[in-house]
Amino acid sequence: MESVDTQMQVIKRGCADLVDEAELRKKLSRGKPLLIKVGFDPTAPDLHLGHTVLIHKMRHFQELGHKVVFLIGDFTGRIGDPSGKSITRPPLTEEQVTANAETYKKQVFKILDPQTTVVEFNSRWLGALSSADMIRLTSRYTLARMLERDDFAKRYKENTPIALHELLYPLLQGYDSVALKCDVELGGRDQTFNLLVGRTLMSQYGLEPQCILTMPLLEGLDGVRKMSKSYGNYIGIDEPAGDQFGKAMSISDELMWRFYELISSKSLEDIAALRKDVEEGRVHPKKAKEELAFEITARYSGEEKAREAMQAFNAVFADGGVPADAPEFACGYGEASKPPVFLTDAGLAASRGEAKRLIRQGSLHLDGEKHTDADSPLAPGSYVVKLGKKRFLRLTVR
Amino acid sequence: MESVDTQMQVIKRGCADLVDEAELRKKLSRGKPLLIKVGFDPTAPDLHLGHTVLIHKMRHFQELGHKVVFLIGDFTGRIGDPSGKSITRPPLTEEQVTANAETYKKQVFKILDPQTTVVEFNSRWLGALSSADMIRLTSRYTLARMLERDDFAKRYKENTPIALHELLYPLLQGYDSVALKCDVELGGRDQTFNLLVGRTLMSQYGLEPQCILTMPLLEGLDGVRKMSKSYGNYIGIDEPAGDQFGKAMSISDELMWRFYELISSKSLEDIAALRKDVEEGRVHPKKAKEELAFEITARYSGEEKAREAMQAFNAVFADGGVPADAPEFACGYGEASKPPVFLTDAGLAASRGEAKRLIRQGSLHLDGEKHTDADSPLAPGSYVVKLGKKRFLRLTVR
Repeated sequence: MESVDTQMQVIKRGCADLVDEAELRKKLSRGKPLLIKVGFDPTAPDLHLGHTVLIHKMRHFQELGHKVVFLIGDFTGRIGDPSGKSITRPPLTEEQVTANAETYKKQVFKILDPQTTVVEFNSRWLGALSSADMIRLTSRYTLARMLERDDFAKRYKENTPIALHELLYPLLQGYDSVALKCDVELGGRDQTFNLLVGRTLMSQYGLEPQCILTMPLLEGLDGVRKMSKSYGNYIGIDEPAGDQFGKAMSISDELMWRFYELISSKSLEDIAALRKDVEEGRVHPKKAKEELAFEITARYSGEEKAREAMQAFNAVFADGGVPADAPEFACGYGEASKPPVFLTDAGLAASRGEAKRLIRQGSLHLDGEKHTDADSPLAPGSYVVKLGKKRFLRLTVR
Repeated sequence: MESVDTQMQVIKRGCADLVDEAELRKKLSRGKPLLIKVGFDPTAPDLHLGHTVLIHKMRHFQELGHKVVFLIGDFTGRIGDPSGKSITRPPLTEEQVTANAETYKKQVFKILDPQTTVVEFNSRWLGALSSADMIRLTSRYTLARMLERDDFAKRYKENTPIALHELLYPLLQGYDSVALKCDVELGGRDQTFNLLVGRTLMSQYGLEPQCILTMPLLEGLDGVRKMSKSYGNYIGIDEPAGDQFGKAMSISDELMWRFYELISSKSLEDIAALRKDVEEGRVHPKKAKEELAFEITARYSGEEKAREAMQAFNAVFADGGVPADAPEFACGYGEASKPPVFLTDAGLAASRGEAKRLIRQGSLHLDGEKHTDADSPLAPGSYVVKLGKKRFLRLTVR
């Protein structure tokens, strides 16, 4: 095994929070493979890049020689909506859980090593708990501590009903750690509270408490909000190669380095070297982004499709990023060469009002430069016009 | 079966609260025996008269032809302190539960009809619940509603820890009603919240909800605080006959009628007639109290011992309440006839200081009148001296 220092460097890459570093060093220093637990929802998996941040971290642990448990939380999923009020949450059958597990495997084994990944189902031990065990489990935690969880605190304060079984779920999740006797639990940053419950419970059951390592939420393509299906700012693992590549190419240069850190399999050294090359002008940023987009697309769609996607992308966006098939338009100097007028006449904007609004928002680029003057006519000459991200025009003002 | 009106009169005798009267009438009007549930703690039973209020109400239902379930809540008792923190609450073994049940039977069958009383243990169904069942059960109730229970509300407000399993106990108790499909649950007034939980749960499990009937807490011998071992104001079911009789004779005339209503097997008509006789001077209150004391003593110690206890009591307290064997003491007029002096000299008080204190507190009676003057000597004559409740003296001042 690598030295503790080297391992810590890999483990801490991109992580949001680690509780607690000294404890983890102690565990690592024993030189034995650690047991790493990561819980996943049992409902139909349809992963996007945001989910893979965690899976890449699992991969890091695998590469360091540790044992990773991919834990599918099927116990609660197989209860369905326990109150019976919602028909949208019918209990999952054993067959559905198995099928979902297969889909998960198909998706995550593009990152994880199938040989060393242990897939577990928590119904194995949670289903076996007796009613007396459940009471003993719930006796380990106070209401006040449970209500420290942000969402519970908020709902209680706002008088939004909290059914009592909801208070049990963090304990059940924590009991998974007891049952697995795990050394480290990974989770998203929004899971910190639940992960800490597991840590507390392990102590109370007389076990060495797990360390917890949380990963940040990956930003979506917009670079602002977290990546999410509902925001439409995601790259899906099962999307066509062309979409994966194109979406990856659309992110900002800044976000590109974040993606490199969190979801590339390049080493930190290689990333640092690449970044230096870009900053010192030896490598064009577009080239670095292309490399990232290729890595992502190749991982989920295969190298061949990734290559095709890259070629198609470059064919469309050749000539400095202007599609080869951009329409041409010509107009006279004067009223007709005022931006709102020619944008509308050429069909790039639906109305002069819309055109003006877009110009004010900074969406108009002429020859790659932002142009915010909506009132003056353009001087005679040739221009590459870009409105928003996708509307192009080769304009001639006579 | 008796008419609904007659039954309602018996059922409502002495009761604190009934939810809901119309529903209960409807259940009774079907003419079938109802199932009546009453829960008891599984820990070592050592009952006093306060506990019997409920048992007398069970007896009323039995006399009306209904089926009474004496439910021993052994499920939680057999878990012990689930947090494992307290060694004072070790789990009860099956043998202990059985032994306690036998003690219960020995005590309560002095009131209840052994032939028609069903003794049940809730571990039979609660122990059989799976972890999934527990989650379904807890999903039926919200945290906010559970925190409406007075003690939870108070503790939560005061930041006194509430372990999560405590929130489950009312649900488990309520589930007993679901399992038994009972028609009515009886309990002390302090159990109202828990009884209502059972009512709610039954509806949610698709059953006709139970009616709940609560009984008031019986006042202790002092007539002020509830009867309780810790206040020392109780009559124990297993006390010697002499104590039972004497304690019953010590209650006030007002409290006597309360005891008649709640724990006598006299009918309401008989009690009303007796009261009228007392109020109109045909029966001395002491006679009515003697009848009550005899009934209580005979029930728990047998008629023979009750008769002996009554005779002994009357022998001691003949002569206007002064024991026949009260010591005699004589002193001269003057310093020696000052109360603190003769009380100490006659051995009723340990010191003049103590005597003065008792006199200031109003504990000294002369010929049945309170005497608070500790400084003046008593005039020559004969006095019946009473200090506190039990120290008597026949005093002659020469």
